[in-house]
Amino acid sequence: MKSPFPTLSPDEAALLVADGSTVGFSGFTSSGNAKLTPTALANRAKALHAEGKPWKIGVITGASVGQTLDGALAEADAVAWRTPYQSNGSLRKSINAGKVAYFDMHLSHLQPWLRTGFLGKVHWAIIEVASVEADGTVLLTSSVGASNTLALQAERVILEVNTRHPEFLRGLHDLYEPADPPHRREIPIYTPRDRIGSPVLKLDPKRIAGIVFNDAGDEVKEFDEPTPITRAIGANVAAFLAAERKAGRLPNGLPFQSGVGNIANAVIEAMAQNKEIPAFDLYSEVIQEGVINLIEQGRINFASGTALTLTESVQKRVYGAWNEYKDKLILRPMEISNSPEVVRRLGIITINTALELDIDGNVNSTHVLGKQMMNGIGGSGDFTRNAHLSIFTCPSTQKDGAISTIVPYASHIDHSEHSVMVVATEHGVADLRGKDPVARAELIIANCVDPQYRDLMRAYVKSCGAVHAHCNPDKAFIFHQAFQKFKDMRKATELL
Amino acid sequence: MKSPFPTLSPDEAALLVADGSTVGFSGFTSSGNAKLTPTALANRAKALHAEGKPWKIGVITGASVGQTLDGALAEADAVAWRTPYQSNGSLRKSINAGKVAYFDMHLSHLQPWLRTGFLGKVHWAIIEVASVEADGTVLLTSSVGASNTLALQAERVILEVNTRHPEFLRGLHDLYEPADPPHRREIPIYTPRDRIGSPVLKLDPKRIAGIVFNDAGDEVKEFDEPTPITRAIGANVAAFLAAERKAGRLPNGLPFQSGVGNIANAVIEAMAQNKEIPAFDLYSEVIQEGVINLIEQGRINFASGTALTLTESVQKRVYGAWNEYKDKLILRPMEISNSPEVVRRLGIITINTALELDIDGNVNSTHVLGKQMMNGIGGSGDFTRNAHLSIFTCPSTQKDGAISTIVPYASHIDHSEHSVMVVATEHGVADLRGKDPVARAELIIANCVDPQYRDLMRAYVKSCGAVHAHCNPDKAFIFHQAFQKFKDMRKATELL
Repeated sequence: MKSPFPTLSPDEAALLVADGSTVGFSGFTSSGNAKLTPTALANRAKALHAEGKPWKIGVITGASVGQTLDGALAEADAVAWRTPYQSNGSLRKSINAGKVAYFDMHLSHLQPWLRTGFLGKVHWAIIEVASVEADGTVLLTSSVGASNTLALQAERVILEVNTRHPEFLRGLHDLYEPADPPHRREIPIYTPRDRIGSPVLKLDPKRIAGIVFNDAGDEVKEFDEPTPITRAIGANVAAFLAAERKAGRLPNGLPFQSGVGNIANAVIEAMAQNKEIPAFDLYSEVIQEGVINLIEQGRINFASGTALTLTESVQKRVYGAWNEYKDKLILRPMEISNSPEVVRRLGIITINTALELDIDGNVNSTHVLGKQMMNGIGGSGDFTRNAHLSIFTCPSTQKDGAISTIVPYASHIDHSEHSVMVVATEHGVADLRGKDPVARAELIIANCVDPQYRDLMRAYVKSCGAVHAHCNPDKAFIFHQAFQKFKDMRKATELL
Repeated sequence: MKSPFPTLSPDEAALLVADGSTVGFSGFTSSGNAKLTPTALANRAKALHAEGKPWKIGVITGASVGQTLDGALAEADAVAWRTPYQSNGSLRKSINAGKVAYFDMHLSHLQPWLRTGFLGKVHWAIIEVASVEADGTVLLTSSVGASNTLALQAERVILEVNTRHPEFLRGLHDLYEPADPPHRREIPIYTPRDRIGSPVLKLDPKRIAGIVFNDAGDEVKEFDEPTPITRAIGANVAAFLAAERKAGRLPNGLPFQSGVGNIANAVIEAMAQNKEIPAFDLYSEVIQEGVINLIEQGRINFASGTALTLTESVQKRVYGAWNEYKDKLILRPMEISNSPEVVRRLGIITINTALELDIDGNVNSTHVLGKQMMNGIGGSGDFTRNAHLSIFTCPSTQKDGAISTIVPYASHIDHSEHSVMVVATEHGVADLRGKDPVARAELIIANCVDPQYRDLMRAYVKSCGAVHAHCNPDKAFIFHQAFQKFKDMRKATELL
């Protein structure tokens, strides 16, 4: 096939994108993002800035992307604004220094917002693909994220063709774009394995400005081995779920969602090791290495996500034995993987990690000490709010006990007490369902708070006077104040 | 028809309910709740307590119910715990005094939680009906709420037959109970007027313990006339919506949801008066008098809700001209009226009232000064989280300016900044979509905060130092502290 699309060097592609543009990039948790054009854009910005000329763009992705994109552009001071999610160190620094305006949104909102114009016009989409045909048919790579909508909504498209993703991936992706209200019908997913869309994306060839070839791997980091703490959290969640099954409140066949990271991995592993929990399906965002291992062990039957986030070696292993995986994996657009409609219909058990949580059951997923943006809310709100059973996990302390992850009042609240059903640390589980705030606080303190903080926390509760919720305006942040002052929340005793 | 069910006096019915029972009552915003048996239960409790004997029950309803139920039982100290929503003064006092354990939950959760057993066994359902047939077929009255699930899940049922609700209401109710996961299918509602269930509820006659006759009206209060403040809020919302239409971001045919109360009424009225907004449909919880007026004026085409909450005189007017209303009203179970799936599919524009909100866009719907429970979150989370466009309204101040409704950091957070798109006060509108926290705070201050608080608020923002979110642990609650100390938030200047 002779491609009708001009081949561009990354630098040639970068020249196409004007200052002030809004650019949508493929990519979700560092999987499947364009890798060469973003760095060329950063270099162009640096050169223009050196000449005293402006060049900044608005950056939209599926979710977090790595150093070649967020890192390079942030370091070149080339990002005016960013949405919906990020986790790169350089970009985070720029956001927290006020150099980049970051809008932290629910991931399930992004694609409808792009279509309705709530985020303005998208000038360019820069999308990694495994292949492109002369008629504009493209095969995506290791993620879907928002790529389908970005590519369809953008005025023009640059494709980065990455041939390390083989053509036999056709069928991994299930691309479905719902009609917008008032014309929307149901999203016809009734089990995690239901296939409702197209394996490929059809683009108008006239909108494809050119092709850049890249052969770079995804920037996916290896996970840490479980620690005694993350193992204990996992075991506590697994034991709780087994008991729920025994009590008849957890029917067979409910799928699980699991957040990203070391704790999430440890929890999934513990569930797989618990013989009272039958093999299960995932309906989640990110399919990580741990999931692949459990598919191999027959403990996970099927995994639906929006990104296949694997290190190079695991990706090789999976692609090398594709026949064993191809009927067990599916990647969907993030508005479908995170759809409130589908999450509630399937009855998903959601397991996400809290950065901080408080004794009323409110969860902070985003801000360190209420100020420093970490990564963003991601899909945790989409899943938690509509879950059959929502669980948040965290270690009870950080920094050798100097930080209690559980505080009197959260310094940022992403998930309210109404949506948080169960909390688990390495010490135990607090089942908050049906409990009033007084009972909730005592359960969290007794079962989840680290023992060295329990008396302090009870003293705070007493200081509230109130018998319903627990906001004492004079003392609500004594843990945070103690950390600011003494670098140790245990010293909050002095502020009581 | 000879009824096979024993007729009971309220006192006889009350004798059936044992201490420690969980009792589910019909009723939503004081519409359609059982009226005589609850008061008889309260009298029984008082008599037993006078003899030194215990008698308390767990109380579940659709939503708020009036003095004959929540009030009487609370005053008799007969409520052990309560869920999901309440607004009666006596009960509120008991909750805030720690005498009643109140679990404040999303209304769309209640019915699935009853079926899955998250709230334990329901021993009795006490349900107001317009009629009951020998085979157990019942016609509900002025609300559905959770009545269908309560009546089907409870071990036994007492019916209060209220014949002021005529038999021709058959067709007002659309009772649909979805299968539970993993067997759930779509909820097949694609427009507010879609009818998917049964007009009547079929109960097993063996589970009906008896019938109590009541002929009492619903305890629905008249709304206050709009004030200059609520009129200005309404006009601001209407102007904003008209501008959104002009900008092409508000397609025709998206239905509206509106909260309950005076501000909500004023907003709906202002929308109806704005000629740039075409006649619209409601897909909401509560159908109030204002909606009836606008149906008569041809400004509302159709209203779907879970309660028809009308004063006696308006109810008479509607029942008296039923042919004109019967094709324009529908009442659904609250898990359907508030369904996340349906809300997002229909693309609902949601308008709810904030008790307090902060400069990051977080909303407090429930707790006065972070401690005193007001009514509960109700459906505001169900609608807001899944809205096409979510709007919160409030007057900028209360108590002659001594309270700023907008504060640096909310003292309770029910809706996080991620779910709150637009804020409106009598001063103007802040459109928070796509804005980072710095821009959001300035928009809220400039457009919505009362002028006498703007400098103070900007000084707080400056004190945060941070350029992303705005939690300064030393100063976050200076407004609340100033009110506690001086009964005037303006005095927060002294605490800066």
